[in-house]
Amino acid sequence: MSKITTLEEHATCGGQVGFYSHPSTTLGLEARFGAFLPARALAGEKVPVLFVLAGLTCTQETFLIKSNAVRFAAEHGLALVAPDTSPRGAGVPGEDETYDLGTGAGFYLDATTPAWRTHYRMGSYIDTELPQLVQEHFAVDGARRGIMGHSMGGHGALVHALTAPQEWKSVSAFAPICHPAIVPWGEKAFAAYLGPDRKAWARHDATLLLEAGHTHPTTILIDQGAADQFLHNQLRPDLLRVAAGAAGQGLQLREHAGYDHSYWFIQSFVAEHIKHHAAILGAL
Amino acid sequence: MSKITTLEEHATCGGQVGFYSHPSTTLGLEARFGAFLPARALAGEKVPVLFVLAGLTCTQETFLIKSNAVRFAAEHGLALVAPDTSPRGAGVPGEDETYDLGTGAGFYLDATTPAWRTHYRMGSYIDTELPQLVQEHFAVDGARRGIMGHSMGGHGALVHALTAPQEWKSVSAFAPICHPAIVPWGEKAFAAYLGPDRKAWARHDATLLLEAGHTHPTTILIDQGAADQFLHNQLRPDLLRVAAGAAGQGLQLREHAGYDHSYWFIQSFVAEHIKHHAAILGAL
Repeated sequence: MSKITTLEEHATCGGQVGFYSHPSTTLGLEARFGAFLPARALAGEKVPVLFVLAGLTCTQETFLIKSNAVRFAAEHGLALVAPDTSPRGAGVPGEDETYDLGTGAGFYLDATTPAWRTHYRMGSYIDTELPQLVQEHFAVDGARRGIMGHSMGGHGALVHALTAPQEWKSVSAFAPICHPAIVPWGEKAFAAYLGPDRKAWARHDATLLLEAGHTHPTTILIDQGAADQFLHNQLRPDLLRVAAGAAGQGLQLREHAGYDHSYWFIQSFVAEHIKHHAAILGAL
Repeated sequence: MSKITTLEEHATCGGQVGFYSHPSTTLGLEARFGAFLPARALAGEKVPVLFVLAGLTCTQETFLIKSNAVRFAAEHGLALVAPDTSPRGAGVPGEDETYDLGTGAGFYLDATTPAWRTHYRMGSYIDTELPQLVQEHFAVDGARRGIMGHSMGGHGALVHALTAPQEWKSVSAFAPICHPAIVPWGEKAFAAYLGPDRKAWARHDATLLLEAGHTHPTTILIDQGAADQFLHNQLRPDLLRVAAGAAGQGLQLREHAGYDHSYWFIQSFVAEHIKHHAAILGAL
């Protein structure tokens, strides 16, 4: 059984939230994640599990403490798993210099360039190692696994769900980076992690995946604030909407007047996301 | 009209949360606070207002973003006001050296010792200046004002409500420091802010106030985690319970097995606190 170290655990909403560390074979580094287990999981019953991916600069703690998702996951008997947003301590030159590349900005993909490919492998970590680890250590049902994220994490949720729909049974996002290949955040990260050949970027871009015929069997739920300062230059849900329409992908994209990119926006609509996943994953 | 500077405002839960700065005449420094306004307050209707006092090391942001109180305040049409936990930039020698004295540790009282008395006047700031400022700038009904806090902020809520029950119409606390005059946190802070004469401490200690005959006309709601690491050496709700009983003070003190001192504990029970205040203050 793979080893995990408990950093802290707290009773909350009738269940338990914990933060853990483990030696990741995928990342080649010690990695941290957070997990919420509802009461019935603590009692040994295998419950559905929702992975929550946070955005740039965040850690495994951010989404769990700031989103208000925990109380609704508790009501629905749903487990939550929150990975970190990048490897830590890889030692890649410059990885700590900017908020949108390197630490805190792993983009949930496997880097292929020499500088980054050794440790920046969040793609395989999210798809394979972390789900297996969580199933080994907690009472969660790996066959009922969903994914949700915010901003960079919304990009991660959409890309993982579209490329492995059999693994990720439900998907939603808050203000996701919908077309990273054509926006500054994505171009900077993809050029560094994947190199200059844009053909290699397509498999990590939700809009391009839809254009290439990748779809998810369930409706994708996306909430977007109309006052989001990143809406037009970084997020581009309008382009995802066009691609989803052409691909016949079910999409519920809701624009909310006045709401921005912050966790105040997420707190306002997270209950409906938890409900969306609980219904598909067969939670309460 | 006194001046306030808007630092940030965000739409949330159908209302708006904002963080503001103003030149405080009481503190003699620029001071920050946060406020949540439900939809009807934004529409100009004067709503009841609940002051929320955070604990050691926190700021005006901590309680609002981590407690989950906002969504329930929104449901009840209740405004929230979150002051900072101390003056900032007073320049008192040593004020930044320890987490439990000075910055982040104002204890919501007016200091009387020469070193601290010029700026450390959070008592008058909470009781007088901030309520007036908030009534001037926002659609809140000062006649329907309640107070709630956590740990050091729970101490503040209890003391302010017991010494000015006509001003603070409802009161509740999470894991409050119930008898600061006899515990390490309180003895350190009171000795510094109030001097060695313990007689001067009594007016800032909820248990001693009850013993001196101060009561609040409403039931005081207190939630306490039984696994709180500070329960026996710093908080002492057992002693408050005895004093409340002797004083005939209505008290609902609930111990929760397994819960600790964290915001994970607060998130679990905050809905009932908002409901408690809303009922007394005549909110929805």
